[in-house]
Amino acid sequence: MNEALTSLQKRNNQQLDLWLNHLPDQNQSLIQAMRYGLLLGGKRARPFLVYITGQMLNCELDDLDTPASAIECIHAYSLIHDDLPAMDDDELRRGQATCHIKFDEATAILTGDALQTLAFTILSEGALSLNGEKNRVKMIQALAQASGAQGMCLGQALDLAAENRSVGLQELEHIHRNKTGALMRCAIRLGAMAAGEKGLEVLPQLDRYADAVGLAFQVQDDILDIISDTQTLGKPQGSDQQLHKSTYPALLGLEGAIDKAQTLLQEALQALEAIPYDTEYLEAFARYVIERKN
Amino acid sequence: MNEALTSLQKRNNQQLDLWLNHLPDQNQSLIQAMRYGLLLGGKRARPFLVYITGQMLNCELDDLDTPASAIECIHAYSLIHDDLPAMDDDELRRGQATCHIKFDEATAILTGDALQTLAFTILSEGALSLNGEKNRVKMIQALAQASGAQGMCLGQALDLAAENRSVGLQELEHIHRNKTGALMRCAIRLGAMAAGEKGLEVLPQLDRYADAVGLAFQVQDDILDIISDTQTLGKPQGSDQQLHKSTYPALLGLEGAIDKAQTLLQEALQALEAIPYDTEYLEAFARYVIERKN
Repeated sequence: MNEALTSLQKRNNQQLDLWLNHLPDQNQSLIQAMRYGLLLGGKRARPFLVYITGQMLNCELDDLDTPASAIECIHAYSLIHDDLPAMDDDELRRGQATCHIKFDEATAILTGDALQTLAFTILSEGALSLNGEKNRVKMIQALAQASGAQGMCLGQALDLAAENRSVGLQELEHIHRNKTGALMRCAIRLGAMAAGEKGLEVLPQLDRYADAVGLAFQVQDDILDIISDTQTLGKPQGSDQQLHKSTYPALLGLEGAIDKAQTLLQEALQALEAIPYDTEYLEAFARYVIERKN
Repeated sequence: MNEALTSLQKRNNQQLDLWLNHLPDQNQSLIQAMRYGLLLGGKRARPFLVYITGQMLNCELDDLDTPASAIECIHAYSLIHDDLPAMDDDELRRGQATCHIKFDEATAILTGDALQTLAFTILSEGALSLNGEKNRVKMIQALAQASGAQGMCLGQALDLAAENRSVGLQELEHIHRNKTGALMRCAIRLGAMAAGEKGLEVLPQLDRYADAVGLAFQVQDDILDIISDTQTLGKPQGSDQQLHKSTYPALLGLEGAIDKAQTLLQEALQALEAIPYDTEYLEAFARYVIERKN
């Protein structure tokens, strides 16, 4: 699992580097900041999900580079904007200075903007297999739905609106299903769509898996914010508590949150049973999500 | 001309309102801020260009609503982000409080982000004619190219990098061809692409027209910043000088800038002569660009 993750991280970085090299005015701080925000570390969980879902459906890696690169651009842009002073005001990300610290705030805003656009350039221009090509417009629709006011941006707005007040479990899930869940679900959908018609057939089962894994990812993030340390996390430990954010451990206790993650893992594994392909990597990913240390 | 502009403004507003109504969580401040940023005033020059280019090529208005709405979302997002304290720090836009003043900075950042995404939702999901459908992916490519690090975002970065230092005419043109020109060119391209194959055939001539008109639009903006007043402009008069921005009047003198706008108008009209359709509205738009008062 770790080997596959590392190898696909590297592949994804190379692909993103190629896309960045296509841009004009390479010495502009905008392009430098895009490279900084895209290529400096990160687990590449979303590209990984694109690759392993597509591979399960017999895609070649070449056929998956386009959606994997596109979704990482969306993720990277969201981190840059989330870290801004007006948002979470974070100075450290992936063990490095955040984009607005390394460059400046205006550049960080524009860099996020341009990375979002790059995602759609990649998904509309990048290579796809003949089967994937038939789903290209569907893939663009899925990426936009997951990223904007029906997905990630809505989740971030809900999250900001929930700061400094108590939030129930149902509301917390609604926030996270949008804030982080929507994009992880989209990664899996893009991997499936890249396989053409047969990918579309297993979307309902994959969605069930994605919903459970996406939420488990957030629960584990909340747990790590308490039990890990700043160096391992690459971002300040304890920042949720500092911002008085509602978290699963705050609502359920630490033990309760760990139980919740286990329950979600079981839900994810159950969803995979209904999929008539080799789900070994999706299973390993679900386990990794709640066992990871950063 | 003014009648057509008003009628198409209204049509565009109604279309955008429909798209906003589709979004979930309507009472969220994110959605309210999107509506505020999209629907409160504005000339709708870019949608207008989509409509008159498409109509010239015998499209129905129904076939042009999708690209017209998409491009206005990109323009609206760019204004919201440009007005942020870290960027131009403007409190007034279209005679109203800017988004971060009316709401707050975090909401304004997210609102811009979500409006960019909405542009791609609209262009990938919205209705097109059968001929336009064949160009849907090309239209998405064109919108992304015009908006990001190869277009508008690059232009904005170049503009920020040029503040507080003297800039020559060539560099100023490079800035504006990206910052404002790319999106106006794209509006015209989208209108042509919505007409299918025959739209693609006149793209080179339309590009020549667009390049001249786009630049003329900026020259006139610079002129108005000097000769107009805050109430007519709907934004603070004299803000270019306050930010020590390089402008055409600063480089060429006011008379020189007025001459430049005239020369660009002639270039635009010349480009239209090579187009074998009724270019009446495109001609009127070019004249309007350098005769407008706000």
